[in-house]
Amino acid sequence: MRREQLVANIRNKKSFLCVGLDPVVERIPAFLNDFEDPIFEFNKRIIDATKDYCVAYKPNIAFYEALGLKGWESLEKTVNYIPDSHFKIADAKRADIGNTSKAYAKAFFETLPFDAITIAPYMGEDSITPFLEYENKWVIILGLTSNKGSKDFQLIQTAEGQLYEKVLTTCSSFGDDSNIMFVVGATQTNQMQRIREIIPNHFLLIPGIGAQGGDLKSTVEHTINKDVGILINSSRSIIYADHSEKFDEFAKNEALSLQKDMSDFLRISV
Amino acid sequence: MRREQLVANIRNKKSFLCVGLDPVVERIPAFLNDFEDPIFEFNKRIIDATKDYCVAYKPNIAFYEALGLKGWESLEKTVNYIPDSHFKIADAKRADIGNTSKAYAKAFFETLPFDAITIAPYMGEDSITPFLEYENKWVIILGLTSNKGSKDFQLIQTAEGQLYEKVLTTCSSFGDDSNIMFVVGATQTNQMQRIREIIPNHFLLIPGIGAQGGDLKSTVEHTINKDVGILINSSRSIIYADHSEKFDEFAKNEALSLQKDMSDFLRISV
Repeated sequence: MRREQLVANIRNKKSFLCVGLDPVVERIPAFLNDFEDPIFEFNKRIIDATKDYCVAYKPNIAFYEALGLKGWESLEKTVNYIPDSHFKIADAKRADIGNTSKAYAKAFFETLPFDAITIAPYMGEDSITPFLEYENKWVIILGLTSNKGSKDFQLIQTAEGQLYEKVLTTCSSFGDDSNIMFVVGATQTNQMQRIREIIPNHFLLIPGIGAQGGDLKSTVEHTINKDVGILINSSRSIIYADHSEKFDEFAKNEALSLQKDMSDFLRISV
Repeated sequence: MRREQLVANIRNKKSFLCVGLDPVVERIPAFLNDFEDPIFEFNKRIIDATKDYCVAYKPNIAFYEALGLKGWESLEKTVNYIPDSHFKIADAKRADIGNTSKAYAKAFFETLPFDAITIAPYMGEDSITPFLEYENKWVIILGLTSNKGSKDFQLIQTAEGQLYEKVLTTCSSFGDDSNIMFVVGATQTNQMQRIREIIPNHFLLIPGIGAQGGDLKSTVEHTINKDVGILINSSRSIIYADHSEKFDEFAKNEALSLQKDMSDFLRISV
């Protein structure tokens, strides 16, 4: 998907919500176990219920791989079920030597029809550029993550600022703001101004709202830019809003509520 | 697999060879395409041909994911075909927030019977510890990789040494030398003495011999320790030694030749 299209979708829907599709067999409503593919059935209903209120979906690949072959099958069905109007993110946090990253790019951009993949930056340029050879596909590089462990390396001082600052500066030079985004956790509000100084125009994928404790208002205020420039991800607070047969109605209400808040920010800010 | 068992296997076989199982459909011998599962058939013959000369196998997951569902099936069959006597490494370079790393650990340690998984350290402690909750399973953390991009971040100066030094110091404290190893590229001979100062006892998984240009002799001399403490990986130089129907004989000869060299080092060094 091209940047212009993504921005247009956000403006049309008044939403920059990304729904994380992270199903765990033990947490999905029990009645779904009567279906042939409970995980896909769960995702399908979540997608049907939320698609009007979000612009992107983000399956985290871990939850599918945990189930082996069956999980991979559910993932294939899920990504093919997501409407073409929606930005499809493989939250995979991959990257390897060039030859191998090429195989990962094939996995997520050819074999599966994702628009974007999340990437871990530790291995540097030649582990990232193979993904950038695909037109209108995106890499979303880990910048500053939402978890406690982000302090172990991302926040340490280097000769060129904190490590995450160096990552933003260096990695943004591998492509441009039409094929690179960065992951910035919603829990990292102290650093957001600095992040926007380094990459004012890039889209940020922001997880950590809800279950992980990030605050929507303060996150948006610190990161929104002239093209909106943010995708706020919510997974557990939407998909596990309820565990009854009506879980999809609760998911819809959660998504709608987030979309309404987003609509207000868009009216005020940009 | 316990460390003592791995060390005993190395001494008994006089080999610290790990064979990388990285099959690409376009590169495997054409006659294999007549089989129902050419990738598994390829791996099976490579395993049969090399198992007497190596102590470990390392499928890089990218090459299987590139093929989607069929690839995942070939991976399952492959890892189940590797004899229990061999150390099974999922070269996956995963890691995510704790909740998600737990799902990856399930994928590779429960759903699939791997002994070890490679890990990218950028997200820090809570992205790594979920893997360490499994008894006799290992994480193999990226320290200093063999590729050109390793200089982008791994070699930059931080307040606590170069980033990779900080990664070795910090990550080695998450577990011990019976459940953590580090990836060190064979192309990084300049740094190997320093690496052994920081982690004298940990096993190193060393790729980069052969196709990537690393030299076996100098690598071994700089890294071998009292428990041998190294697994040298070779992928392309073994599995693609030949493209005829006799590719497995060539693979066997390559593995045997490396094992002979290793046997000499073991006689001299430890």
